[in-house]
Amino acid sequence: MTDFGLDDTFVGQMKGVILSIAPHARIIDLTHAVSPQNIAQGAFILGKSVPFFPDGSIVVAVVDPGVGTSRCAIAVETAKHIYVAPDNGLLAAVFLQEDVKSCVRITETRFMLPSSSTTFHGRDLFSPVAAHLASGVAVSGLGCAIAPGACTMISLPACTLSDDGRTMEGVVIYADHFGNLVTSIEAEMLDEPERWEVVFGNAYRLPLSLTYGSTAEGKPLAYRGSSGTIEIAVRNGNGAKTLGLKPGEPVMLKKR
Amino acid sequence: MTDFGLDDTFVGQMKGVILSIAPHARIIDLTHAVSPQNIAQGAFILGKSVPFFPDGSIVVAVVDPGVGTSRCAIAVETAKHIYVAPDNGLLAAVFLQEDVKSCVRITETRFMLPSSSTTFHGRDLFSPVAAHLASGVAVSGLGCAIAPGACTMISLPACTLSDDGRTMEGVVIYADHFGNLVTSIEAEMLDEPERWEVVFGNAYRLPLSLTYGSTAEGKPLAYRGSSGTIEIAVRNGNGAKTLGLKPGEPVMLKKR
Amino acid sequence: MTDFGLDDTFVGQMKGVILSIAPHARIIDLTHAVSPQNIAQGAFILGKSVPFFPDGSIVVAVVDPGVGTSRCAIAVETAKHIYVAPDNGLLAAVFLQEDVKSCVRITETRFMLPSSSTTFHGRDLFSPVAAHLASGVAVSGLGCAIAPGACTMISLPACTLSDDGRTMEGVVIYADHFGNLVTSIEAEMLDEPERWEVVFGNAYRLPLSLTYGSTAEGKPLAYRGSSGTIEIAVRNGNGAKTLGLKPGEPVMLKKR
Repeated sequence: MTDFGLDDTFVGQMKGVILSIAPHARIIDLTHAVSPQNIAQGAFILGKSVPFFPDGSIVVAVVDPGVGTSRCAIAVETAKHIYVAPDNGLLAAVFLQEDVKSCVRITETRFMLPSSSTTFHGRDLFSPVAAHLASGVAVSGLGCAIAPGACTMISLPACTLSDDGRTMEGVVIYADHFGNLVTSIEAEMLDEPERWEVVFGNAYRLPLSLTYGSTAEGKPLAYRGSSGTIEIAVRNGNGAKTLGLKPGEPVMLKKR
Repeated sequence: MTDFGLDDTFVGQMKGVILSIAPHARIIDLTHAVSPQNIAQGAFILGKSVPFFPDGSIVVAVVDPGVGTSRCAIAVETAKHIYVAPDNGLLAAVFLQEDVKSCVRITETRFMLPSSSTTFHGRDLFSPVAAHLASGVAVSGLGCAIAPGACTMISLPACTLSDDGRTMEGVVIYADHFGNLVTSIEAEMLDEPERWEVVFGNAYRLPLSLTYGSTAEGKPLAYRGSSGTIEIAVRNGNGAKTLGLKPGEPVMLKKR
Repeated sequence: MTDFGLDDTFVGQMKGVILSIAPHARIIDLTHAVSPQNIAQGAFILGKSVPFFPDGSIVVAVVDPGVGTSRCAIAVETAKHIYVAPDNGLLAAVFLQEDVKSCVRITETRFMLPSSSTTFHGRDLFSPVAAHLASGVAVSGLGCAIAPGACTMISLPACTLSDDGRTMEGVVIYADHFGNLVTSIEAEMLDEPERWEVVFGNAYRLPLSLTYGSTAEGKPLAYRGSSGTIEIAVRNGNGAKTLGLKPGEPVMLKKR
């Protein structure tokens, strides 16, 4: 996962480096369309996606506005996966949801490309390190162990229940390819889902639907999305365009 | 093939699921840029592409506006491939052009993810089913056999010869990356290709060319495209922008 | 590497053809977003990327405005890789930077698809030829040997030092995904980098920075990019949008 896009050769060069070192590695792309330098968005979608990766996957995550500065590179081994990433909060959701076994600050230059750029550690550091891990190098061999708590953490998008248990507040995180608005509100925090209504803008109050098909064409609906958070959409339409709701804007659920 | 785009993590999650179950599967992307929920377009390009897939390929096709409703999921085994798709017409061209050996309504939940969403069967149903097929599960094990004729069919874009054999009518299906306009007119239905002219708009009459290079720079041309249908382009230009012809608009060929 | 984009099925069909012939081939995408028919841009980014490919890679490069004309298809074996491409200058940088061992004009139709289109040699010629190479066919078996000097060459973007050694002239080649402007000026041609300033537009004079982080947010900077050429960017912003500098426009470095 990166914010590199697919129009340039960044991702292709990374894969070239990986296969040069680990010819048998299987590489899949999670996405390269994280908004440029948006660490919080990257952390969120990474956390939602890694449960679907094979056990033992080596996850290369690069959203790295601090590349070339003194920010560290880390490797994190959990009960399920190994992650390599800049130490900038990109693994915040992973730290919260996986059982961390060890953390290492990556310093061993013999696992990096010999002539490293200051601007493209995705190719020069993270890819070769991941490939060496795939070839059997142990996480502990990459550098000095550090406490997980010493790693940079960031706040993930809010999902807050009011004291009286009748209001849940969150935000729109992004609009997906279909224009469905993904919010930060975790559906599993809602007891009695049939009693909650999604409230946004001036006029909208939507009960939670079970599926797109239960709403009329062109009408808005709210439902538990495939990542487990509440989403707002327009049936066979584009919710982001129709409803005028943007990333960062608040969304509330109220209990009837 | 999906209409999921590459900006979100949908496709990456599907691949994670596939490799979790079938670690040795080879995965290639046909395209994820089918117009959102455009089943007819998906059916057309799938039919044009599968002849180039290896024998024995397992084809996952998801353009699925009815996800989460009572629409069925099907697996179709032909002489060449196995397809898994929603039963909504997406396999219409496949049914017409391949020799169907068996059809099954997919109901065996043990081949799906344990906690299925109602909105993302690409990840929760079609990917794990395809991976189990790749691991040796038989199509007949996925559910109950159904007659191919019981599957949903849709009309594919028209390609109609007039009674006097002198006029062929079709439509523009889409503009490709280069702005070349792909029509529904099958070149192999044209006897004596040198006698046919493509007619569209008010002013254009184009004889069929054999290659881009036989036309002057910036001039329009019509030719047999790489999918076997007639295409309309501008030499080293963008036909869609220059000619003002849009998907769905009629195109006619007349015999001189 | 192609200019085919990812919205159509071109690239997916190519991969289907490759795996039909060479089921064990590993395929990675360098990029499919070369500007349509921009051979010079393709040649530049190919030259910058292939050093990161595994030794022995077979590189399929297709930017091919002359497809279907009398332009030849060539295979070029170097000390590191084998290339298949149209003979139109797309391998210009490869010829300059790699040790060419042999060149062949590809004529053996038994290594192409039986029914070739005149418009999609990426699928019908280059992919099957590459797959046969991956399966053990020798370059010499593809057709007649030709002298490397007989292949089409094109001029690569300029990087010119003035006679007095105090001015280096180049151009903007493209803006990357982040809006960073990649120029043609090779950093290694600059002695004493700390004495050079990048000059462009009416108002900008920028010393060379070592990393993004050494510049204030929103301010412009120039630095050695990950391809070894000078790049111009805006720290945590979009240089292409902010600075108004476009591909093809001149950039100059002056020595203090």
